[in-house]
Amino acid sequence: MPRNINTIFISPEQMKSEFVRILTDHGFTDVKADQCAEIFTLNSLEGVYSHGVNRSPRFVDNILKGFIRPAAEPSIERSLGSLEQWNGNLGPGPLNALLATERALELALENGIGMVAMRNTNHWMRGGTYGWKAARKGYAFIGWTNTEANMPAWGAKDFHLGNNPLVFAVPYGSEAIVLDFAMSQYSYGKLEVYQLAGEQLPFPGGFNDRGELTTDPGEILVTRRAVPIGYWKGSGLSLLLDILATALSGGLSTAEISKREAEYALSQVFIAINLRALGNYENIEKAIESIIIDLKGSVPAARSREIRYPGENIVRIREENKKHGIPVNKEIWRRIIKM
Amino acid sequence: MPRNINTIFISPEQMKSEFVRILTDHGFTDVKADQCAEIFTLNSLEGVYSHGVNRSPRFVDNILKGFIRPAAEPSIERSLGSLEQWNGNLGPGPLNALLATERALELALENGIGMVAMRNTNHWMRGGTYGWKAARKGYAFIGWTNTEANMPAWGAKDFHLGNNPLVFAVPYGSEAIVLDFAMSQYSYGKLEVYQLAGEQLPFPGGFNDRGELTTDPGEILVTRRAVPIGYWKGSGLSLLLDILATALSGGLSTAEISKREAEYALSQVFIAINLRALGNYENIEKAIESIIIDLKGSVPAARSREIRYPGENIVRIREENKKHGIPVNKEIWRRIIKM
Repeated sequence: MPRNINTIFISPEQMKSEFVRILTDHGFTDVKADQCAEIFTLNSLEGVYSHGVNRSPRFVDNILKGFIRPAAEPSIERSLGSLEQWNGNLGPGPLNALLATERALELALENGIGMVAMRNTNHWMRGGTYGWKAARKGYAFIGWTNTEANMPAWGAKDFHLGNNPLVFAVPYGSEAIVLDFAMSQYSYGKLEVYQLAGEQLPFPGGFNDRGELTTDPGEILVTRRAVPIGYWKGSGLSLLLDILATALSGGLSTAEISKREAEYALSQVFIAINLRALGNYENIEKAIESIIIDLKGSVPAARSREIRYPGENIVRIREENKKHGIPVNKEIWRRIIKM
Repeated sequence: MPRNINTIFISPEQMKSEFVRILTDHGFTDVKADQCAEIFTLNSLEGVYSHGVNRSPRFVDNILKGFIRPAAEPSIERSLGSLEQWNGNLGPGPLNALLATERALELALENGIGMVAMRNTNHWMRGGTYGWKAARKGYAFIGWTNTEANMPAWGAKDFHLGNNPLVFAVPYGSEAIVLDFAMSQYSYGKLEVYQLAGEQLPFPGGFNDRGELTTDPGEILVTRRAVPIGYWKGSGLSLLLDILATALSGGLSTAEISKREAEYALSQVFIAINLRALGNYENIEKAIESIIIDLKGSVPAARSREIRYPGENIVRIREENKKHGIPVNKEIWRRIIKM
């Protein structure tokens, strides 16, 4: 997060208690307000401000509009043994996702692997949250969500695909290796940040109006032709993730979500794999450690920093924010304490 | 495949019978020779020549060197209910992968989802083969393999990651939607094809010796710095796929495979999901159909062809090659009939 004269630092405790107050005022029970505030605070503490403190006003707005129903509980609709279909009943996305993750872990405890497909749920904020949860308990995790259409398919110029974030996580000592990525190379939010800063993107992020790849965020914001990761490959992956989330959960597809007045009633998938049941867990830990050691043995290209694994930064940011407080834009914080 | 004066056309029957002859001569039983020849022929018939007819001489070479053991049968090492660990015992990669896929389908039939992790196996040729198999039986499929190191991690200049192909497949009428993609934007084989043709890549595929993104295949073949799809994202995905394949199968990682004299003893993962058990299968078929209709409703960018779903071309190529024969380079075919 860019820090400037408008940045203030809020302790995690203070941030959480503000969120608890706001959520309780908006129909959350004490328990649910605590759980949900914990997730928002953790996302901010771990540096994902866009899906923590900065998104909380929009979250509350979605409650007021009835897209998120604070009292709703997910309900199970079908069980096939290791695969369950759930209805999120439009409950708060982070709480629904937490429940789905925990249920996938239980199923994996019984049969090695567990999958929960949930329809009719809401934005889970930061997908990595659920990967960290599972991985810290000794499980591997694969999960994804669909979204409204916000990316053109490969070769197209209008939006028919979501950026459908995908999460992979595995344990790593007491921490985790967590990959949490959207199918677009850059989000529109990120493009706006670069444009405001008057900077070029480090790598091509979309097409300009002459149909050429460009690093100019302003040109992409005009054409709305952000590129999928790996061009045709990310376009295909976005499509398949949407098909799977929709088919497995019996929920709405990206196309159907996009017909609504706002982005809600999403379809999500949660897969957990019980690594502790695979014989000697110590051997698995050693195997992961030796893969990371090998990665770290890479020769950095000129001007490159140390080679990192996904999620490595999180540990450092978390410690820094615990020590100095979570950086928040003064204006956003002013809105939050007034809510 | 580029067609020229050196292209001849071979019927699928003739191609398969040549493969059967060669495999039988190299220690395959009649049944296994038939199964394996069928996969090689199908890959060629469906246009994936690089992992069909063109790769068969290397496959035979790997048998002669003892990396592939024609008589080996996979053996189960651990069962957790819906998740099984298998040892491929260095058997032929396509046959091992076929068995693993079929076993994952059986597990999914029992419990909704099934996963087989197989260590000590060999190159599966074309990953899409197994996705098509599963999808045509009404299952969703997710699978991947690790490989030797053939791609630098993000920010690095030497190889520590594999291109670890990943497959997603779902049924689509009597056909399938199959995404089969490697983590590198272009394979080195593809870069060589562009270089030989004196052409630039359509999109940046790696870095030149000044550390700049380039579309010049020759520059990338010099630096060996091919880019992962989505830059840091594909680098992270490759790492996580390797960690999962290694941890789940108890097999060798990309780093360990790379220490060997050749690329063998790989780790692979096969996940099947039983879509027919999820209530009304017709509704799932309709949901997939309507997602594809929506995709096809995209407005094409200037100079773009029709928007396609992954695997769409396969159907057309298969029909064309059935009618006219499979295009093969004369020299390669000469080698094959002499083997």
